[in-house]
Amino acid sequence: MEEVTSEGEAEAIEWAPLAWSLLSRVRQQSPLIQCITNFVSMDLVANVLLSAGASPAMIHSLEELPDFTPNVDALCLNVGTLSSDWLPAMKAAACLAGQFGKPWILDPVAAGATAFRLKACLELVDLKPTVIRGNGSEIIALSNASMGTAKGVDSSHNSMDAVDAAKSLALLSGSVVAVTGAVDVITDGNRVIGAANGVPLLQKITASGCSVSALIAAFVAVDPKLAFEATVSALSVFGVAAEMGMEMAKGPALLRVHLIDCLYNIDETSVLSRSKITSIK
Amino acid sequence: MEEVTSEGEAEAIEWAPLAWSLLSRVRQQSPLIQCITNFVSMDLVANVLLSAGASPAMIHSLEELPDFTPNVDALCLNVGTLSSDWLPAMKAAACLAGQFGKPWILDPVAAGATAFRLKACLELVDLKPTVIRGNGSEIIALSNASMGTAKGVDSSHNSMDAVDAAKSLALLSGSVVAVTGAVDVITDGNRVIGAANGVPLLQKITASGCSVSALIAAFVAVDPKLAFEATVSALSVFGVAAEMGMEMAKGPALLRVHLIDCLYNIDETSVLSRSKITSIK
Amino acid sequence: MEEVTSEGEAEAIEWAPLAWSLLSRVRQQSPLIQCITNFVSMDLVANVLLSAGASPAMIHSLEELPDFTPNVDALCLNVGTLSSDWLPAMKAAACLAGQFGKPWILDPVAAGATAFRLKACLELVDLKPTVIRGNGSEIIALSNASMGTAKGVDSSHNSMDAVDAAKSLALLSGSVVAVTGAVDVITDGNRVIGAANGVPLLQKITASGCSVSALIAAFVAVDPKLAFEATVSALSVFGVAAEMGMEMAKGPALLRVHLIDCLYNIDETSVLSRSKITSIK
Repeated sequence: MEEVTSEGEAEAIEWAPLAWSLLSRVRQQSPLIQCITNFVSMDLVANVLLSAGASPAMIHSLEELPDFTPNVDALCLNVGTLSSDWLPAMKAAACLAGQFGKPWILDPVAAGATAFRLKACLELVDLKPTVIRGNGSEIIALSNASMGTAKGVDSSHNSMDAVDAAKSLALLSGSVVAVTGAVDVITDGNRVIGAANGVPLLQKITASGCSVSALIAAFVAVDPKLAFEATVSALSVFGVAAEMGMEMAKGPALLRVHLIDCLYNIDETSVLSRSKITSIK
Repeated sequence: MEEVTSEGEAEAIEWAPLAWSLLSRVRQQSPLIQCITNFVSMDLVANVLLSAGASPAMIHSLEELPDFTPNVDALCLNVGTLSSDWLPAMKAAACLAGQFGKPWILDPVAAGATAFRLKACLELVDLKPTVIRGNGSEIIALSNASMGTAKGVDSSHNSMDAVDAAKSLALLSGSVVAVTGAVDVITDGNRVIGAANGVPLLQKITASGCSVSALIAAFVAVDPKLAFEATVSALSVFGVAAEMGMEMAKGPALLRVHLIDCLYNIDETSVLSRSKITSIK
Repeated sequence: MEEVTSEGEAEAIEWAPLAWSLLSRVRQQSPLIQCITNFVSMDLVANVLLSAGASPAMIHSLEELPDFTPNVDALCLNVGTLSSDWLPAMKAAACLAGQFGKPWILDPVAAGATAFRLKACLELVDLKPTVIRGNGSEIIALSNASMGTAKGVDSSHNSMDAVDAAKSLALLSGSVVAVTGAVDVITDGNRVIGAANGVPLLQKITASGCSVSALIAAFVAVDPKLAFEATVSALSVFGVAAEMGMEMAKGPALLRVHLIDCLYNIDETSVLSRSKITSIK
């Protein structure tokens, strides 16, 4: 368990304008984000990308990838409803992204739930995702498996407990690793940043995690060299939109509606005044 | 066509506290519900389960079932967008559920629409679902087919007309059978209970039936020995949430939003005062 | 680029009552619309059809088509998340629709994005859809490919730029062709009609285009001889519902909710007073 530094607030002054700047670029450039994602999440993922200004494309068939993936701005792979039918396309898309220098995000949903799924996630990690985003349990499962250890997966791990696992995974994989939870933790193995925006009720909206992974893809797409910063920014902006949405919602369904609309309408003042991004030591 | 007994109101006093008690246990225990369900319904099914306090998992690939299904609290199978690709996984999951003593629910969407679908549903019925939930036409089609009769399927049958078919199907299959309609009818072949909550506009929300099937799975999961009572309770609680949502809605889309939020927020007073559960003779 | 005629307003007096009449018939007859559509759109497509009074059925497996498709009132094919697994069922359903005299709509999502997709769309066009509905880029891609020309696809084409392409495609295919955009343009190769209802924010709702294609299917279903008029009417009614929804929405998610509810509640006065349908010369 790590501590939020006392310098946190000072640093937030630097992060918040960056988050706003990247959101503005997403709105201006409307990056094309290919998503090979689970069936449950497709509607919300597409709507979150659209509301942020990006252009989603759900294209998953092997035959289309060589024509399509080289032209996208980023790729988001999500194994939520994984099957042996879809896995080859995920791998092929990841290979193409790597080959054409396109950033790509891996969302290892329920990575530790089955041997088949864990193996698939490890194979995808080997293809060098730009960013890996999961909850604490998923990142711990993936990190342990990457290191060849066989610790049990405890779904009660929270994002702060998973910091060490995230650092290890980042160092092993070369990916930026984001662990979402009460505080989102983002690391490249050396730097560790906490983004404390968001609301607990997000957990009652299916695919809210998948959506933020796709949003990370959109932010990374507009400046792939700033993958770490873009990941932090996307998580914070999504969390701020959720906080604003929560002010109008009493339950998860209305929160979902207002989250999307707040993401669409969010302005500079809100991002600058609400972002809570700090270093974690 | 059967009559609602005059003792109905007196009995409601017993049923409503049970319904509240089971909902409370769903919220406390957060049962893990595996859903192999149709593409149309995945989003709503997951969100209804989350709003009730359960934990949905949409996992459908054959490779994952042996690792995953033995660890769930209940399984919900829904044949809405059936294909020959998915049917083997449905059967395998049902077998695993039976083998490991996990309750499972069958939603035989459009059971009588095609020969392929009817055959698939009958094969699933043979695997002994704990509960079968459908509309009148679906239950009549399934009941007739189970008995080897070949009556035509008339989609104008309502849930009360289907009571005899439901009883026959329950006795033949050993399943609790629920027929949803203006009044939901639940039977184990001997007992017949009517749950009269809900609003007609639910029929204009796609997958509202699929969602209540999944909710039944969550209620049965917390006390599998009370499968009959849990089915009645889930249908009544869902109907009460719909009634409360309807007070804030003028159309199906806003009803869907408020239904989910009411299910999330519903309290003991509402369940006790609004449940309409009575014996049918 | 074509001009809206000055006689536009006079003609609207004829079109609006027709649009209302067809919507009324959808509500009364509740036509059964089979949709083989992309995963992203299934929820919204089904809910839009239900709110308009139609009865959606998402059935896509080859085994079921011979039993099912001959009994539907119309078919809607959408290639959004195309795969080699699903294409044979799309073709088989189109063949059955043709054979049994059922109208069917093709939504050639992203027709020009990949060679595989373009080929699939051309093969479907060869099966003689009653209506083809796409955006400007999709119709231009399809039209050029149908004529064997190889012009580049420029996604910045708007619906008015695509009028010539739509006319050519209509003449070649024998289909009614609808190009949606700021002004929706509908042509059978000779007549060209513009429907100017709708709001720009629809573009930020995923599957809004897919949904209007399905709505066209519902309108055509109630009077297949009036396929051209029904296409115009469906586009106008959908656009009017969007305009009414927009009065209550500040973002895309709430617009989606109110669009559905407005479609459910829309009355004769609103259709008659708001429809903007005019000839284009």
